[in-house]
Amino acid sequence: MYEYVEALVAPQNLKNAMLYSLQAGGKRLRPMLLFATMEGFGLTFEHGIPVASAVEMIHTYSLIHDDLPAMDNDDFRRGKPTNHKVYGEATAILAGDALLTFAFQMISDLNEGDVTLSQKLLLIRELARAAGPEGMVGGQVADMEGEKKSLSLSELEYIHHHKTGDLLSYSIIAGAIVAEATDKDIENLREFSKHLGLAFQIKDDILDIEGSEEAIGKPVGSDINNEKSTYPKLLGLEGAKKKLADHILKAKEYLYKVSINSEKLELLVDYIVYRDR
Amino acid sequence: MYEYVEALVAPQNLKNAMLYSLQAGGKRLRPMLLFATMEGFGLTFEHGIPVASAVEMIHTYSLIHDDLPAMDNDDFRRGKPTNHKVYGEATAILAGDALLTFAFQMISDLNEGDVTLSQKLLLIRELARAAGPEGMVGGQVADMEGEKKSLSLSELEYIHHHKTGDLLSYSIIAGAIVAEATDKDIENLREFSKHLGLAFQIKDDILDIEGSEEAIGKPVGSDINNEKSTYPKLLGLEGAKKKLADHILKAKEYLYKVSINSEKLELLVDYIVYRDR
Repeated sequence: MYEYVEALVAPQNLKNAMLYSLQAGGKRLRPMLLFATMEGFGLTFEHGIPVASAVEMIHTYSLIHDDLPAMDNDDFRRGKPTNHKVYGEATAILAGDALLTFAFQMISDLNEGDVTLSQKLLLIRELARAAGPEGMVGGQVADMEGEKKSLSLSELEYIHHHKTGDLLSYSIIAGAIVAEATDKDIENLREFSKHLGLAFQIKDDILDIEGSEEAIGKPVGSDINNEKSTYPKLLGLEGAKKKLADHILKAKEYLYKVSINSEKLELLVDYIVYRDR
Repeated sequence: MYEYVEALVAPQNLKNAMLYSLQAGGKRLRPMLLFATMEGFGLTFEHGIPVASAVEMIHTYSLIHDDLPAMDNDDFRRGKPTNHKVYGEATAILAGDALLTFAFQMISDLNEGDVTLSQKLLLIRELARAAGPEGMVGGQVADMEGEKKSLSLSELEYIHHHKTGDLLSYSIIAGAIVAEATDKDIENLREFSKHLGLAFQIKDDILDIEGSEEAIGKPVGSDINNEKSTYPKLLGLEGAKKKLADHILKAKEYLYKVSINSEKLELLVDYIVYRDR
């Protein structure tokens, strides 16, 4: 992924700021979902690398902008100073803009031996929906507005569905598009990914209560202290755990309808339930 | 253009912030260039509207982010409070992100009766290059870095070529792509547009000295007072005027090589030279 950025004809400081956050690591859950889906359809993962990189760039841009003083005002992420603490706010804003735009460039430059024109266009269209005002950015705005009040379960689901769910879904859908899956398989994977995305978020909320500070990299209980609406707050801790189990069950029901070797995707589902960070 | 935003399934406050800046007006130079190019190739402008809207959205997002406190810290633009003064910084950042992403969504959703898959993909690829790290965002970073030192003519040209030139060029290239122009015509239009973009910027610098405060909407001499590198500073006022004339001449030379009715594009070239704001 880094070599695509390094090859850009652009100011070095901008490239450094883009690379800094891309290299900060993280779980790489989105690329793993994309690769697992492709492999489930019998493809090797290699020619999914540019698409997976594009998704990780979108995810990374959203973290850079989220961390800004005007947004969450975070000084650290994954144990390292946030982008704007190192490069300054102006460059951090622009590094985010650059990663977002470059993601579309990467997909539009995909090797035409690997994907057809119509696959490429579908990858772009779905990405724009997942990342834009009807997806991630819309979820982010709803989340900010939600901080001022206590939310209903459906409002909370709207936020998570879009803020984090849409890009997780995209990772799976993109793998299916690259693998030329049928429309029916894609629709079942879409339902699968929606439940998976909500499960992922509920697990995050549970970890905020039960996790170890060392593993999750931020103070335990920070959601409770800042009065944020969470699943455990709305449903109780046991209620949240039951909700998590429900979504995992439904996710697997949809997954089993797909003509796919689901082994690796199931491993990722289990990882989401059993992870400690 | 506004109806595309109004139709989005997204938080109302986000849509309002997007619309606020889109509706702030401005010269609409990019859509005019796109339409003039299409008409030059004998098309009516109507089915260029979504592409023109996408370009104007990219331009508008760049203005919203430029005006932020961490960037130029402007309270007013075109006589109205800037986006972050009305909606707050966080929403302004996200409205910019949403406009940028939605521009790609709009092009990927173009009616396939109007453009082929390969035209659509070329429109996306060129837009990503023009707007991203190798284009507008790269130019913006170079401009910020350039504020700290006095620049050579070639450094100044690099900045303007990318910061404002690339998106102006894109408007013309996009019109040519929609009109299915030949590669040769597109390359000549690209050269035409590069000279036009530099001419536009030199004229801006000259207006900062000779313009009327009322017409240009900001204090005359603001570039001189903030020690920014400009063409008049590097070349003197007369030198800058000569440079402007040179670029206009070269622009027209390239334009005359294109198999196009160049009447409307020439009117826009003249507008750039003779405008008072």
